[in-house]
Amino acid sequence: MNEHNMPVLGVDLGGTKILAAAVDPTGRVIARIKRKTRAERGPEAVITRLIETCRRVIRKAGLTWDEIGGVGLGAPGPLDPTHGIIYNTPNMPGWNQVPLGPRLAEALGVPVYLENDVNLGTLGEHALGAGRGTQDMVGIFVGTGVGGGVILDGKLRSGVRSAAGEIGHMVVLAEGPVCGCGKRGCLESVASRTAIVRDIRSGIAAGRESIIPQMTGGDPERLTSGVLARAWRQRDPLVREVMGRAQFYLGVGVASIVNLLDPEMIVFGGGVVEALGDEFLAQIRIVARQYFIQQRDADRVRIVTASLGDQAGVLGAAVLVWQRSHR
Amino acid sequence: MNEHNMPVLGVDLGGTKILAAAVDPTGRVIARIKRKTRAERGPEAVITRLIETCRRVIRKAGLTWDEIGGVGLGAPGPLDPTHGIIYNTPNMPGWNQVPLGPRLAEALGVPVYLENDVNLGTLGEHALGAGRGTQDMVGIFVGTGVGGGVILDGKLRSGVRSAAGEIGHMVVLAEGPVCGCGKRGCLESVASRTAIVRDIRSGIAAGRESIIPQMTGGDPERLTSGVLARAWRQRDPLVREVMGRAQFYLGVGVASIVNLLDPEMIVFGGGVVEALGDEFLAQIRIVARQYFIQQRDADRVRIVTASLGDQAGVLGAAVLVWQRSHR
Repeated sequence: MNEHNMPVLGVDLGGTKILAAAVDPTGRVIARIKRKTRAERGPEAVITRLIETCRRVIRKAGLTWDEIGGVGLGAPGPLDPTHGIIYNTPNMPGWNQVPLGPRLAEALGVPVYLENDVNLGTLGEHALGAGRGTQDMVGIFVGTGVGGGVILDGKLRSGVRSAAGEIGHMVVLAEGPVCGCGKRGCLESVASRTAIVRDIRSGIAAGRESIIPQMTGGDPERLTSGVLARAWRQRDPLVREVMGRAQFYLGVGVASIVNLLDPEMIVFGGGVVEALGDEFLAQIRIVARQYFIQQRDADRVRIVTASLGDQAGVLGAAVLVWQRSHR
Repeated sequence: MNEHNMPVLGVDLGGTKILAAAVDPTGRVIARIKRKTRAERGPEAVITRLIETCRRVIRKAGLTWDEIGGVGLGAPGPLDPTHGIIYNTPNMPGWNQVPLGPRLAEALGVPVYLENDVNLGTLGEHALGAGRGTQDMVGIFVGTGVGGGVILDGKLRSGVRSAAGEIGHMVVLAEGPVCGCGKRGCLESVASRTAIVRDIRSGIAAGRESIIPQMTGGDPERLTSGVLARAWRQRDPLVREVMGRAQFYLGVGVASIVNLLDPEMIVFGGGVVEALGDEFLAQIRIVARQYFIQQRDADRVRIVTASLGDQAGVLGAAVLVWQRSHR
């Protein structure tokens, strides 16, 4: 961080909600607003809503646009960060090559920087959260999917096609379950909440005993990370078994990353990890370390929980503005 | 490369042979010597032999030690590049915390830089071979094992514990075959020559038809990369099937690396790839690209064969000297 930095806006555009925050140069959130995305209304309506949300949060923070260094914007990929274009996003119908960055910049009169949302979560944790002070850090976010980001030599790694950090699509179980991406055996296909819910439902359908049907009234929509966490703490045998498998694959995935890059830190975030906390990480750590090819100094690779919660994305978006505008 | 560089020595210490080369500042090999390691005689004998070999190659090149910028030395890991210590190497009995770098430096009177042999092969291909001109490149060497190295932003990546680049121990088939490292499902356990030979032998033992027994006289020691290549070209069905599986796993492994790092280039080398050439890569490319999570611009990630053959290691060792001595 630099004392000459200006306050900025960090915005996290998700399929269900928009989170926007005005952030001061020390990384403190001055004001924040959370709204529904209403993605079903299509891109034009969402863009209008985004512009409105940015203006509201500036007002709420008691700032004027002259005092703002820019807007950092996280969105689900695939996208082109260089030109600020969203290609399409599975959870937001109708988005196809939308120049979201330029559209917002024009409406707001400040520079707008677009980046993959999970990359920004990683950047946030690196600059202001659990990864503070590390040079090399990998973020893994376990929720509906498994996403992530890679920080090397203190910089967010983008890759030659801006496609780096797709940790959920590293293959850990070749020819395993079908993934949302259409391939098989990706980490996401065996360790996301989607995978966990799929396996719990199969278990219940096969007659396995579990408190889950009672907790959700049989409605799979109610099988949230919070419900999973409660059933896990109550030692529901089906939930423990299925989540134990997810922990095993996450451990193996961590080891693959460590054997390739040997970073200082792996930070785990996302809905599932937030709901379960460090308890969930214990088994991941054990498996990962077993699979480290270099056993020496295994504990120098720290495996920790994220510390910024749902603000990782907006804070990372703020950091993005400071980094890009100082180039 | 820098015109002010001095000639250097690159040495590749393997379990069976030592390769040493005097290399001029343009990356040209002036003289080279190849000798048996005779690892069975223990570390002291090998160190004496290494010193002797270095002196011989200097003489052969018509150089004096005053004209030499240093010695780069590649050895199988695990090792500590910072202090020049070999911890132990599976193929060389009796090596345990041997300060090989300092020992050679003392004997030869020039700086000696130690690094993992496969990392140096990657560095060689990056600076002087197939990866020339790239910023981000990953090397994968398929032989007895599967090794590799990672170049990011033009620099060999070492990692917080000097343990990066162990591509053979990324897990692609969790709970798959037992690997040499004791874990299961590492890329090496399903795609190295060791894995290929294991599966071919199992096939033959189970009564599968193959020309392999005829080609090797039933001696598994004779099942070399060259023999595999000939049987493969003759479309031996067992060899095609087993190697097709190795290609599949290598493709999946490449995709995992690309989904994580999105580099410009993957360079394939090692005995198996040298024997089979680009033919072997065709199927790896097809599988890898299928598994890229970002399909856009898939062909911007080039997947190519190494170009330096068995000299990649000594040339990489030479480059290491230039890089480290310019720090």
